[in-house]
Amino acid sequence: MAEIPLRDTVPLEAIQLESDLTYEEKPVKILEYASRVTRSMVIKFCKVQWSHHTEDEATWEREEDLRKDHSHLFLANPNLEGEIHLKGAAGAWEAGKPLSIEEVEVAPPQAMEVRVKILYTALCHTDVYFWEAKGQTPVFPRILGHEAGGIVESVGEGVTELVPGDHVLPVFTGECKDCAHCKSEESNLCDLLRINVDRGVMIGDGQSRFTINGKPIFHFVGTSTFSEYTVIHVGCLAKINPEAPLDKVCVLSCGISTGLGATLNVAKPKKGSTVAIFGLGAVGLAAMEGAKMAGAARIIGVDLNPAKYEQAKKFGCTDFVNPKDHTKPVQEVLVEMTNGGVDRAVECTGHIDAMIAAFECVHDGWGVAVLVGVPHKEAVFKTSPMNLLNERTLKGTFFGNYKPRTDLPEVVEMYMRKELDVEKFITHSVPFSQINTAFDLMLKGEGLRCVMRMDE
Amino acid sequence: MAEIPLRDTVPLEAIQLESDLTYEEKPVKILEYASRVTRSMVIKFCKVQWSHHTEDEATWEREEDLRKDHSHLFLANPNLEGEIHLKGAAGAWEAGKPLSIEEVEVAPPQAMEVRVKILYTALCHTDVYFWEAKGQTPVFPRILGHEAGGIVESVGEGVTELVPGDHVLPVFTGECKDCAHCKSEESNLCDLLRINVDRGVMIGDGQSRFTINGKPIFHFVGTSTFSEYTVIHVGCLAKINPEAPLDKVCVLSCGISTGLGATLNVAKPKKGSTVAIFGLGAVGLAAMEGAKMAGAARIIGVDLNPAKYEQAKKFGCTDFVNPKDHTKPVQEVLVEMTNGGVDRAVECTGHIDAMIAAFECVHDGWGVAVLVGVPHKEAVFKTSPMNLLNERTLKGTFFGNYKPRTDLPEVVEMYMRKELDVEKFITHSVPFSQINTAFDLMLKGEGLRCVMRMDE
Repeated sequence: MAEIPLRDTVPLEAIQLESDLTYEEKPVKILEYASRVTRSMVIKFCKVQWSHHTEDEATWEREEDLRKDHSHLFLANPNLEGEIHLKGAAGAWEAGKPLSIEEVEVAPPQAMEVRVKILYTALCHTDVYFWEAKGQTPVFPRILGHEAGGIVESVGEGVTELVPGDHVLPVFTGECKDCAHCKSEESNLCDLLRINVDRGVMIGDGQSRFTINGKPIFHFVGTSTFSEYTVIHVGCLAKINPEAPLDKVCVLSCGISTGLGATLNVAKPKKGSTVAIFGLGAVGLAAMEGAKMAGAARIIGVDLNPAKYEQAKKFGCTDFVNPKDHTKPVQEVLVEMTNGGVDRAVECTGHIDAMIAAFECVHDGWGVAVLVGVPHKEAVFKTSPMNLLNERTLKGTFFGNYKPRTDLPEVVEMYMRKELDVEKFITHSVPFSQINTAFDLMLKGEGLRCVMRMDE
Repeated sequence: MAEIPLRDTVPLEAIQLESDLTYEEKPVKILEYASRVTRSMVIKFCKVQWSHHTEDEATWEREEDLRKDHSHLFLANPNLEGEIHLKGAAGAWEAGKPLSIEEVEVAPPQAMEVRVKILYTALCHTDVYFWEAKGQTPVFPRILGHEAGGIVESVGEGVTELVPGDHVLPVFTGECKDCAHCKSEESNLCDLLRINVDRGVMIGDGQSRFTINGKPIFHFVGTSTFSEYTVIHVGCLAKINPEAPLDKVCVLSCGISTGLGATLNVAKPKKGSTVAIFGLGAVGLAAMEGAKMAGAARIIGVDLNPAKYEQAKKFGCTDFVNPKDHTKPVQEVLVEMTNGGVDRAVECTGHIDAMIAAFECVHDGWGVAVLVGVPHKEAVFKTSPMNLLNERTLKGTFFGNYKPRTDLPEVVEMYMRKELDVEKFITHSVPFSQINTAFDLMLKGEGLRCVMRMDE
């Protein structure tokens, strides 16, 4: 007599009975993925086959819960997740030419990678700099963008810190948590994930996750946030408070934190001190905001554009110096107006003369100058060594010395506690489809930050 | 009938009776000074007239006790103290010519000044530099010397912190305790008493306290310790533990503290870190000793003289690099041998190329370079600003950032607690009469410190 397969039965010997004659149900395999995307989050589900049960008996579970309790399931078959086909990446196809929004295939995240649904992205000078690509080896076509906020859509093998639905800020530099820099209390220059502006591919396999009809589109500084979906190394994502409004805190993922940290983490002005800020763009004003937060009594803005003074007052600027108004070097002007020099100077222009002036205007005995702005490759910093021997300190900083994963969540908390005002940096907001308007605003020097809304 | 003056009586109305009909004996006036000089200290006495008593009834009291309880007496008439006539000052009469010991009149200390009996003085490169006076405006005849230990002999008006008999280290730079620098926690560059190598007179009245037959002899950096007695501003004297042997701790008043403080107070290497020291003279070896005390695991000495390595081993040197042995710049050699750079570098040569190398050999992310050596006036420090932006720090220090009066006593205590070994810096000791031998030793580069004994 032929054996009749019985539904809902399994061979008895396969069941591991516990001592009390019960047995444990264990998830064995993920059969299918699905997700529900809302305005503020993505809820992901997995169809799971259980031990002692057939595929037909599989159940739908929240992926977040599964990853928490049974992460091994995801190690085995991350590629089950399909490519995402959607209109929604603003590609820069050629240096200096307007961006166009195209349908891009976004491959699933590989080992240590995360696919993120970007909700808001802002435009930063660095995007424009690499879009113009003057004097650079061009890396095109490319999806630019690095200042953004989004939600984790799916994660690749080995990712344990993030689960779908987590709110994240992508960062143009990373934190592997394993190299000498990440283990140092002082450095944020991760050996593995330090910014690389020339690389247009993922570090894991040297491939791009973006394609159009099979043709790869290059990544930008590991983030490429000018896309509804992007793939980012887990080390370049800061998991933040899900209650923080992403349309505001997205600007903390680059320039604002860079300036703020330069002052709070590196220059560290004391209460009642005098601080000079060179360059009153978004980074400089964030540095100024840091000086105000630290309790500086006198904050001197230095800029070649006198129109910047009015706006800077909102960030605590008490005095304004336009180097063009003086025949003597601006460092001498500052030393004279402060009876010997400022206590701290933060340089945010990247011009070598401003760097030297920022150093030479600090007070002997205790003055600290912090360089933030990135100079021309051939620039040379020159000063008399006596300026140093008279107990002045010269330092540089990168991303405000914040470690992206470790420290950025706390910057978001500063905003949540209303210690840090982010809104005043956001002067414009446009739908993502008007990304070229954002470029125009920046090229004209209008406003500070233009946030783009991805879902419009 | 004529009034007969009665001895031992005073007019009754002059006596202020207390409520219990007693009256207080108060010292009114100092009539005469005397002192007894022993090998290790000077005991000073004053002849004091008391209230309600005549001059004939004056008594001899210890000056120290009087100053403690009745300091007003000394404010009124400091000039009662006479000039000291003695053989015992080694004058530099002309640049580069051997010193000769002459009888010099040492005037009493004026307001805020202290006359010190020097017991031990050491020779430092700076003395030789200003004795050679190459390329300088010559200030001769001059009594050089600034590294020393002595005992307070008498004090001028307004001096309240020191009394005769106090053990002191004279310092070439001062601490007025009243200016912005002295009030700053970070600076030791006192506005009033900061080192001035061109001034050969006291700051109070612009006069010298040294004369020979009425002709003034210039002071040197406010100390002029090549003299049995010298007059020093109170702000340039550190009062130290009287139990500390002056023949040892005298070397802490300049070079040793300069190097030690550069490492301990400014570079601040962490336990287990790698430190490079440029220049292995006394200052560099003191910086090295500081690195060893801080627990540095690897200490790389850099010097053009390979003979320095053997001696440096006593100060913790684990590796030695002679720039002459390499065709590539020494900073590249150091970066390669330390897998990216040293954690801290301390530059003690004053050569501009060494300064630049010391900065460029520190690790990105956390490296700190500290400049100690004084450069040529026309020297220019040049580096790529990217070296700074990659989170390196460049600082200079003066006298190891020690505040002379506030901090030097604690350096002496480090020696007393056997945390700091001073003896190994003292390679020679000669009678003061052989001061030219000390100069010869230094010119030949032999040894580290030669201590001169003033009483021989």
